[in-house]
Parts: sequence; structure tokens; C-alpha cells
Amino acid sequence: MRAVTFQGLEEVRVEEKPEPELSAADEAIVRVEASGVCGSDLHIYHGRVPVEPGFTIGHEFVGTVTAAGEGVDRVAVGDRVVGTFFTACGTCAPCLRGEYNRCANGRTFGHGAHLGNLEGAQAEQVLVPHANMSLRRVPEGISTDVALFAGDVLGTGFHAIAHGGMRAGDTVAILGLGPVGLCAVQSALAGGAVRVFGIDSVEERLAMAAEFGATPVHLTEQDPKREIRAATGGAGVDLSVDAVGHPDPLALAVSLTRDAGTVSGIGAYSGRAEVPLGLAWLKCLDLRLGVANVIAQIDRVLALIEAGKLDPGPIVSHHMPLAEAAEAYRIFDRREALKIVLTP
Amino acid sequence: MRAVTFQGLEEVRVEEKPEPELSAADEAIVRVEASGVCGSDLHIYHGRVPVEPGFTIGHEFVGTVTAAGEGVDRVAVGDRVVGTFFTACGTCAPCLRGEYNRCANGRTFGHGAHLGNLEGAQAEQVLVPHANMSLRRVPEGISTDVALFAGDVLGTGFHAIAHGGMRAGDTVAILGLGPVGLCAVQSALAGGAVRVFGIDSVEERLAMAAEFGATPVHLTEQDPKREIRAATGGAGVDLSVDAVGHPDPLALAVSLTRDAGTVSGIGAYSGRAEVPLGLAWLKCLDLRLGVANVIAQIDRVLALIEAGKLDPGPIVSHHMPLAEAAEAYRIFDRREALKIVLTP
Amino acid sequence: MRAVTFQGLEEVRVEEKPEPELSAADEAIVRVEASGVCGSDLHIYHGRVPVEPGFTIGHEFVGTVTAAGEGVDRVAVGDRVVGTFFTACGTCAPCLRGEYNRCANGRTFGHGAHLGNLEGAQAEQVLVPHANMSLRRVPEGISTDVALFAGDVLGTGFHAIAHGGMRAGDTVAILGLGPVGLCAVQSALAGGAVRVFGIDSVEERLAMAAEFGATPVHLTEQDPKREIRAATGGAGVDLSVDAVGHPDPLALAVSLTRDAGTVSGIGAYSGRAEVPLGLAWLKCLDLRLGVANVIAQIDRVLALIEAGKLDPGPIVSHHMPLAEAAEAYRIFDRREALKIVLTP
Amino acid sequence: MRAVTFQGLEEVRVEEKPEPELSAADEAIVRVEASGVCGSDLHIYHGRVPVEPGFTIGHEFVGTVTAAGEGVDRVAVGDRVVGTFFTACGTCAPCLRGEYNRCANGRTFGHGAHLGNLEGAQAEQVLVPHANMSLRRVPEGISTDVALFAGDVLGTGFHAIAHGGMRAGDTVAILGLGPVGLCAVQSALAGGAVRVFGIDSVEERLAMAAEFGATPVHLTEQDPKREIRAATGGAGVDLSVDAVGHPDPLALAVSLTRDAGTVSGIGAYSGRAEVPLGLAWLKCLDLRLGVANVIAQIDRVLALIEAGKLDPGPIVSHHMPLAEAAEAYRIFDRREALKIVLTP
Repeated sequence: MRAVTFQGLEEVRVEEKPEPELSAADEAIVRVEASGVCGSDLHIYHGRVPVEPGFTIGHEFVGTVTAAGEGVDRVAVGDRVVGTFFTACGTCAPCLRGEYNRCANGRTFGHGAHLGNLEGAQAEQVLVPHANMSLRRVPEGISTDVALFAGDVLGTGFHAIAHGGMRAGDTVAILGLGPVGLCAVQSALAGGAVRVFGIDSVEERLAMAAEFGATPVHLTEQDPKREIRAATGGAGVDLSVDAVGHPDPLALAVSLTRDAGTVSGIGAYSGRAEVPLGLAWLKCLDLRLGVANVIAQIDRVLALIEAGKLDPGPIVSHHMPLAEAAEAYRIFDRREALKIVLTP
Repeated sequence: MRAVTFQGLEEVRVEEKPEPELSAADEAIVRVEASGVCGSDLHIYHGRVPVEPGFTIGHEFVGTVTAAGEGVDRVAVGDRVVGTFFTACGTCAPCLRGEYNRCANGRTFGHGAHLGNLEGAQAEQVLVPHANMSLRRVPEGISTDVALFAGDVLGTGFHAIAHGGMRAGDTVAILGLGPVGLCAVQSALAGGAVRVFGIDSVEERLAMAAEFGATPVHLTEQDPKREIRAATGGAGVDLSVDAVGHPDPLALAVSLTRDAGTVSGIGAYSGRAEVPLGLAWLKCLDLRLGVANVIAQIDRVLALIEAGKLDPGPIVSHHMPLAEAAEAYRIFDRREALKIVLTP
Repeated sequence: MRAVTFQGLEEVRVEEKPEPELSAADEAIVRVEASGVCGSDLHIYHGRVPVEPGFTIGHEFVGTVTAAGEGVDRVAVGDRVVGTFFTACGTCAPCLRGEYNRCANGRTFGHGAHLGNLEGAQAEQVLVPHANMSLRRVPEGISTDVALFAGDVLGTGFHAIAHGGMRAGDTVAILGLGPVGLCAVQSALAGGAVRVFGIDSVEERLAMAAEFGATPVHLTEQDPKREIRAATGGAGVDLSVDAVGHPDPLALAVSLTRDAGTVSGIGAYSGRAEVPLGLAWLKCLDLRLGVANVIAQIDRVLALIEAGKLDPGPIVSHHMPLAEAAEAYRIFDRREALKIVLTP
Repeated sequence: MRAVTFQGLEEVRVEEKPEPELSAADEAIVRVEASGVCGSDLHIYHGRVPVEPGFTIGHEFVGTVTAAGEGVDRVAVGDRVVGTFFTACGTCAPCLRGEYNRCANGRTFGHGAHLGNLEGAQAEQVLVPHANMSLRRVPEGISTDVALFAGDVLGTGFHAIAHGGMRAGDTVAILGLGPVGLCAVQSALAGGAVRVFGIDSVEERLAMAAEFGATPVHLTEQDPKREIRAATGGAGVDLSVDAVGHPDPLALAVSLTRDAGTVSGIGAYSGRAEVPLGLAWLKCLDLRLGVANVIAQIDRVLALIEAGKLDPGPIVSHHMPLAEAAEAYRIFDRREALKIVLTP
């Protein structure tokens, strides 16, 4: 089968790879209808996340189950399904606590030996371990574009809000309006946020956030602190989300959040970084960090999609054939695309 | 000033009463613009809740602050305000735990000596103890009809959902579509419920619930258990609300709720009653009972009203002058009105 | 192998049964060192829980793993282990929410076709499905008697406290001082309860509760309401546990609990029953009902046993050989034993 | 009356000051029996927290109520009481959410105009605003030394554990074994921690932590990461507390905490600081920062003291007369005393 493989710095290639085969009772094989190119794929592309040359990448997929072990009972052969970007065993100590994102046996699709040696989903087929954990039926009438978001980008935006403890009636600031930030905007509003401020410096992203119901705030042409202070009676927002994963938006999030509020950091921070620790302490903030627990969220996310309360469809800017993956990565890397969907 | 007083079984009368005067630093006086007639007023009307003859009744009000003690800092003279149906001291052990509905010094407006000897709000003026706890400014542009709900009926419907632990993506059943039930429908949807079933046997109420976004289910002409089972893949809803306060809807709520789900009982139960204890145990349900903690909810409720996410206005069916209070109670008692607003 | 089988009303018999065999990758076989006779076994003995004649009963066991499928990674052949009284799949919707006690595929040991058709543990060997969920290594130095409690009786007492939301500094009442109630006493004190009232009418049980640190209150010779009111400044306890499973202790629990407190009902209620609904509503209580989620609790319970903070050993009153199971059931049924441990 | 006043860098003096007088209905005056010298007093002493020369300092006190306004109902004239280190109004938006430590009208005793202009408690008398919030009766039989801790140092140690979400069965690391850290050790064990690691480099403090039940770990002579990894099966602790308030122990706390665990930072951080953000994100940690909410905790803390489950008495190393305050500060500043109690 054909698959998108990492070759080296800023080089991906569509290659012929062997078809996957079942090797355990709880595995399934999915024939991929569509896979997404995600911001975290660029970490691989730029060599920041080490992946072996020739390894299949990609971790967002929608497709049809073509084979399933006898232990798979949440989906069946023939089902149209969406996958989560990682798998979890369901029985280790973290899994029993519901912390599927920290599963002791967790593996991430398309991230090389480093993250579980699990071949990726930008391919014609993908092998899915622990299929009961990682696959869900796509509800009737939901488009492939929309379903594709549930197991990764939208699951992450939703987690930022849910794990951040947002309650109906809260005010929220989202820092960074890439696909994850835009999905966080939708998730906050779906859960009853009374005001969501979307902060970025790209006009198109601000415009899309506004279409989704957010109050757009330009990062540099406006003064986010002043805008949000004015709009919240001087208090700041109940919850801020750093959807970028960088110390600068995290610092801004700290300053935008009300006393005893929460900052949700879902973007991938790295190494040591300087943060406004004194201010965060003075404000008695709760900083909730980490990769999204999409397995814990996906059923709610799909239910909200089905109810029409979440609709990430407009975020897709490009559809391209799998064969043109190299070009897709180049476009995406130049930030000319907001979201690219690949079809085999 | 004129005030609606309880006289005896099914008899209320508009009488002349002395104007209230401030006697403590944290009190305020409100000139009432509008007061509501509420289902719980009928408990007094029918003698089920004992109130002394001549006592002013009513516990829902919107008006303007005309006097305030020096300790009042959350509202000021001249402010247009809405009141909560009870007051709380803010400093006793239950209040420090946030359980304002069980304040050791709590008093309910218009419920006689039994509930704190606090004269009611169906009058031209009302004295408000602990005004920082019980009064909130009405946001700009909000009508009197809508604001009137925030401190009682809508606060109660919202509490049923919030205290019931509802999360975005949940399914909910509301049993009883009087004003509180209809407000619970709105609150559930505002907080991200994906499906809300509104159950009643009155067509007009079912129709209004449907307008608000609920799936109407006729209590007797349909089979609620079958309908909800079918719509939830056999599981039942995450949260059921008994908005009536009677063992029958409570029993139905138990049967409609999924395993390990929650039943929120906000209606006023009385005495001992037979309940399906075995089924509730088998299902591992959490039954959360009690009068609504509206002081804890009112800021969120007003924010959601201001954001346009809650709008109880359509529930008001009648506007009548305070002078016609006796007729208002007769109409309301005959169930010819869904909600009556009295204006002095 | 030999196994204790249910034969009919008040009749159990030790019979020869075929040895269990592995049939799935996540199963294990345990050679039983000790099994317990539990209060819920009496429900079977008296025919209140239907079990097929010839079915092996018993659901508490400690033993050594003699075989394990390739998917079993939390225990290994040769490990000394304790089992939970039920199994769960780990991947259904309730399991993903952590509600292992309501697993869609859950099975209870030794309770017949009705509860999953899983042969019991009062036998020389027991087959354990989903072994990663249901088996845990017994920490070094823990006796068989003590370990035996972790997966059933102590797990249940601990759940009553933990699921009841108890916090350090709380006051607690335990109604019914059988093995589960005594374990709830220990669990409350281990978690920082400042005062635990143990209520029963059997002197020996009251004495044991007192040894464990509780304040004993005789159900009929004292007035529990007056005692607890006096000891809590009139307020009542933060948490009451009905460890019996009957409407009478539940009603007493409601009256002993403070406003906005919690009643935890872990005993098995059946059918419809009369409860003081009005009082529970007036007090704004939270009633948390249902069978214990021991899979969620067992790791904590074992850690607390290992730390010496829980020690149910003194509850064991009798050790008997498996061969004398019929006599053991008779003794237990006559309430002449508090806890019987059977050894093959 | 005599009072300890700040005079300038590293200079305090006992001066004659006017006696306090009641000016509001919810105030009380306390004749001080004992006041504590606290680590945060050294921030003033060293000029890091700006206080006006001549201002009375000190924020820990036990004494007797000598006067109380008519709105004071939780304590009465003649009561022996302990105070919390700050006051809160009880009615602002943060207070209604229970966030008394972020009260919009909050004032801290003895911290100058900057923190509310409230004269301190190292004096013969102290004026207590919002006395219902800030004063509690000392339970019978509790010594002055022990009671003194409840409203500040022990309330802070307890908050670190409670706000950190610790549950019975958890493992905990406490970084820094000054009075707050030692109180956190006691609080963790009282709440059911199965293992508490106390980390410091001062032998006496390690020894006291060990007496309290902790496992002492020397910061430099041992390798805390290796010790804790070995003792927790490689996982790390469920909760780490930085009781110092410095980026170094915070970084160590991040490395000692298990995936999806919690770090509680109660020490006073200042300014911007470098933290291991990447590791905290990778581990999905929750960082809960801020000054302790002692008003929310004091009733539990006193109940645990009364029950004998908390006993900070051994932490007091010195008793000195108020008149020798200047010498007391010098000794404390040279770290020759663990805790000094001043008596007028």
C-alpha cells in the first residue's frame, strides 16, 4: 500500500509499504478514507521530534474497518470510524484513573520508535491496537472532514476547556487561533461560555474565530490585557487557554486570567522556560498542563458534533490526494493552509 | 404602602402596610417595579406552608434601590436590581462552605415566621437584609420580565443542572415543564446538553419546551421510558431533573437515568414517600435533593441572560397590577396562567 | 478440583468440578489459598439471588497465579494475588468513565447466570477474566486474612467513604457494624475523620468498632439522634453510611446527617421502599447509592494496608477448611461468626 | 499599649501605640495572649515587602475577645480565640466562590498599607475586622502554642495538601521542612497519605519530620529523585508541595511528581523565573499556586487538632516576651529558632 513516510529534514515521500496484519485480539485494521496533516506533524518535519527515516507518519484518520480481532466489540468490520491520535491499554494504573493520555503502554500514531513505534495514518491502511479504546463509529450524516477532527484537533480543543474546568457562565480567552485554538473557541461556546476572546495576529484566523462566535482581539494591534480587563469589569477571564505551547502566550494567559482562575496549557512546551511565577502565585492560579486526553473526550465530542453544537468543518482549507503529500507538507509548512485533508 | 398579604385559606388581600426602614448596616430598601407569583406561593395559598394572617407574601422582585446601609457595597441607591428569594448571612459555617441555601441565619422572603419572618416582595417596597448577598444589578438592556426570573425560577432551573453536575455532551430529561422545568430545559441546553427531553402532559408546555430546543415527550400519550431508551442507545440519560417535587416523577426519573447517572430533585418533597430504592441502588445513582442555592448561581445566570444564552421571557403569560393580586392568585391556582408578573 | 456449589435453598455442597482452562489472552487462573464467606453469599443461600444448582459460589479470594494469557501484564505466574469480587472489561463506555461497577460486560464471581455466569472462588482454583482489571499482587508481608478483604469487604467500606466525598476533618456515622461497616469505620479514620460514630445493636460489634477508634452508639439502648446531635453542636455528621442496605438505617442516616451533607448507601436495597424524602430534601442531602467500585479503589486500599493504616484482620472470627463449607454457611447464617475464611 | 513596629531595614522596636477601638458592627478587639514570628515577617524585616515605619507587624495570634460589634455572632466577649492571618468580607464575588484568599476587600494583618493597612498582632491588643470570618473559638484543652498555628502556618500546610487534592492512599513529597513544610507533613499523614517524603538539608528539620512520620530525604547528601523513584515503583509521588517558594524546589517538585499528578506551590514566588515547563507539560501536571485559603480551612484544622490528629506544638522552639521582640527577630533571622512565640 502507499504511505507517507518521513525521510529526513523537511522531506516526506509517498512510498510502497507492506499492508498491516492483525497480531492481537484487540486490534483492527482501517482502510483510510482521509487523513489530516497536523501542526505536530511539522515537529517531525523539522526534526524536532525524532522519527526514523521510512517511518509512516500521520495521526488523524477516518476510514472503514476491514478487519478486527475477536476482542474488538465497540466497532465492527464495515463500520465507518474515526481514530484517536494515540492508543491506550485501558488496564494500567494511569488508565484505571482515566489518565489515558499517560497510559503506561500508550503509543502515538506516526511518531516513530520514540512514542511507541506505531506506523502512521497518512496511508491507505492503518493498524489500530486496542481498537476498543481508539476507534469510534462516525455518527450518521457526519462528513469525513468533520469527523476527522474528533480524535485529535477538536478533541484537544475540547479537552483544553473541559480539563480546564470551564462552567456555563464563564469567560474564556484562547491564545492562538490555529486549528486547536479555533476548536477551543467552539468548545467553550458549546459549553456555555458567555464571552470567548480569541487572540492571534493573523487576520483570517481572527475572522474565523469571530464567525464561530468569539470576540477577536489582535495580539499586537490591540492591547489584549486592556481589552479583556475592560470587558470583564477589571477581573480577567475565568479560564485562559494557551493553544500555542510557548512561554510568551503562557505569560499573557497568566496576566489575562482572574484571581483563582485557571490556565490550560495544551500546546507542546519544551525544555526550561521563563514564566511569570510571582504573578501566577499572587493570583492563586491553577496551571493545567499536558497533552489532551482525547480518549476520555471523544464520545462527548462526537455527540456534540452530531447535535450540531461543534462544527470544525470550516477549518479545512485544502483537500489534496495522498500522492501529493510532499507538496501538502510544503504548503502547510509555509502556513499557506489552515488545515489539509489527504485522501488516498 | 400597598402589599399583598395572606389572610387565610385561599385568600390574599392588598392592604396598606408601613414602609420598611433600615435597621442594620448591610440592609437595603428596594422600590419594587415588578414581582412574580410563583408556584411556591400556592403552597401558602393552600395552607400547606403556614404563614401568619396579614403577612406580606411574594419572593421574586425587580426594582430600584432607594436606601442602603453603609455596609452595602455591591449595589447603590439608584441601581436597578433583582433579588434572590432568600437571604444568607455569608459568615456562618454553611455559608463559608458555599451552602447559602442552608445558611444558619437564612430567611426567605414572604414565608412567615416559620422561614425567618421576612416580609414579602409583592408590595411597593421591600426591605432586603444582607443586601450584598441578595441583590444584583440588572445588566443593561435586560427587561424586567426576564430579570425577575434570575433570583428564583431560573436560578432554580439552573441550579438543578449545575448542581446535578451536567457536562457539555450530556443527555438530560426534565420531568415537569412548569416555569422551573422550562428554565431547566434552557439551562441544560445553554451548558452544552446534546439532547434534552421535556416531559409533561400539558400540550402548551410541551410546545414551549420544544421551542426552547427540547425533545417533547408526552407523559401519558407516549412512553417516556421507551422513547428515551430508544434515543440513548438503551442507556438512559446522564441527568434527570424532577422539577415537580413528587414521588411519581422522582420514580420515573430513576428509571430514565443511565447507570451511575444523577437525579436532581429540586421540587419540594414532603414527608415520607415510597421510592424505587432497589433500582436506584442497582443503577448506582446519585440523588441530589434540595432547594436551589440561587445566591451561588445568580451571577452566572445573569451573565448567561446578558449573553443571550438564557431567555425565560416567553414563560410570562400574564401581567397584572398589584391591586388585582387576589384575582391573579385565583387565575394562577386554576392553572390558567404559566407565570404572572405583578406591577405596583 | 473441589468447589463449593449452591444446591438449593439453604444447601451448599463441596463437589468435584472440572479444572478451569484459559480461553482468552487476558485471562488468568488462580490456585486459591483462601476464600471468604460474605454476607452477600447469604442472599444466594436464602434464594434471594437466583443461582443455578451446581454453580460454584464465592467471590473473595487470595491465591497464586498458575496460568496467564499473553495479554496479562499486571500479574505473572507465581504471583500471590487478591481478586476483586467482579470483573470489568476496561473499554466500554462506563469503564472509560471509571464506572467499573457498572461495566457493560461486567461479571460477578459466584453469582450464577444472572450476573455473568462466572464460576465462584470458594474452590481450589478460579478462572479470572480480564485479569489486569481484577487481580493485584499482595504486598510483601501482608497476611492472607488481611489481603482477602481488599477486593470485596474492605474495598466496599473504603468506597462508601471515598465515593461519599469524605474529607479530612469530617465527622461520620456508620450504620451497621458488620464486616463492611467495620471496614468503613477504619476507612473513615484512615482518611482523617475527626469523629466516627459506629451504630449497631450487637455489643461485640460495638466493642470492635470502639477498638478501631469509633465512638460506639447502641441503636436501641441509646438515642443515636440525640447522641450525635450533642456531639456535633446540633449540626449532624458530614457523612452517613448505611452499611446494611435497608430503609430503616437509611432513614436514620438521613436524620443524622447535617444540612447539605451526604448519605452513602452501599448495602443492597431491593424493590420499592418508604424513605423520609421530605426531610432529605429539606436538608439538601446528596444520596449516593450503589454497589462498590472496588476496581477503582483496590490500589489505594492495598497501599493503606501496606502502610498499616487499614487492618481488617481482627474481623476474621473463623478459619475452616473448604471441605466444611456446608457447616461454615450454617454457622454464618446463624450469625455466630463475623467473618469466615475457607482454606482448601 | 505596647506593639512591635517595623522601623526600617532589619530593625523592629516595641513602641507605645493607641489602643484599638471598634468602628463597625462586625469588628472585634482581641487582647493578645501570644503572637508568632513567622517566616513571612522576615520578608518585611528585610524590606522585600514594603511596610511603613512605625506600623505594627505580626499576623499570628491567640487571645481573648474584649469587645465585639453587634454583628459579631460566631465569637463573644470573653471567648478565647485564634485569628486567621488575613480577613475577608464574605460577600464579594471571590468570597461567594469561597476564594477568601482573593477577597476583593481582603486585608492582611501587619503588612502595611500595601496589603490593607491593618495593624498587626505582635501587640497587646489587635482590632479584627470581619470577626465572623477571621476569629474562631479555641477548643477546650488546646494549648496556646498549638492554637496559634491554626490560622497561619498549619492552615497553610493543610491548604497545600487539601487544595492539592490529596486523597487517602496517596504518596506525597514535601520540599522544605520549615514550619509550613512540617505542618504539611502532618496534614498529609492525617488525611491518609501512605508515604510522605520530607526533603530538606537541615538535620534537625529532617529529624522532626521523621518524628512526625515522614521519610526524611536529605536534599544534597541523598538523591531525592532516585530515592523517591525507588520507593514509588518508578512512578513518582501523587502530590508534591513546594513549601519554600523558590524555582529550585519547584523544579525538583516537577521531577518528583508522577504523570498527571499535582504540584502545590504555597511558598511566595516572586517575579519571573525559569521552570521546567517542557517536563511539566510532558507529565501532564497540574500546578496549583497561591497563598493559602486559611479561612476556608480553619474549622477543619481546629477539628483535627482537637481530635489529636494534628499537633504542631513541637515546632515551637522559643518563647520570648513581647518586650524582647527585637532580639527575637535577630535570632529568627539567623535561623537559630524554628518558631518563636511572643507573649505580652
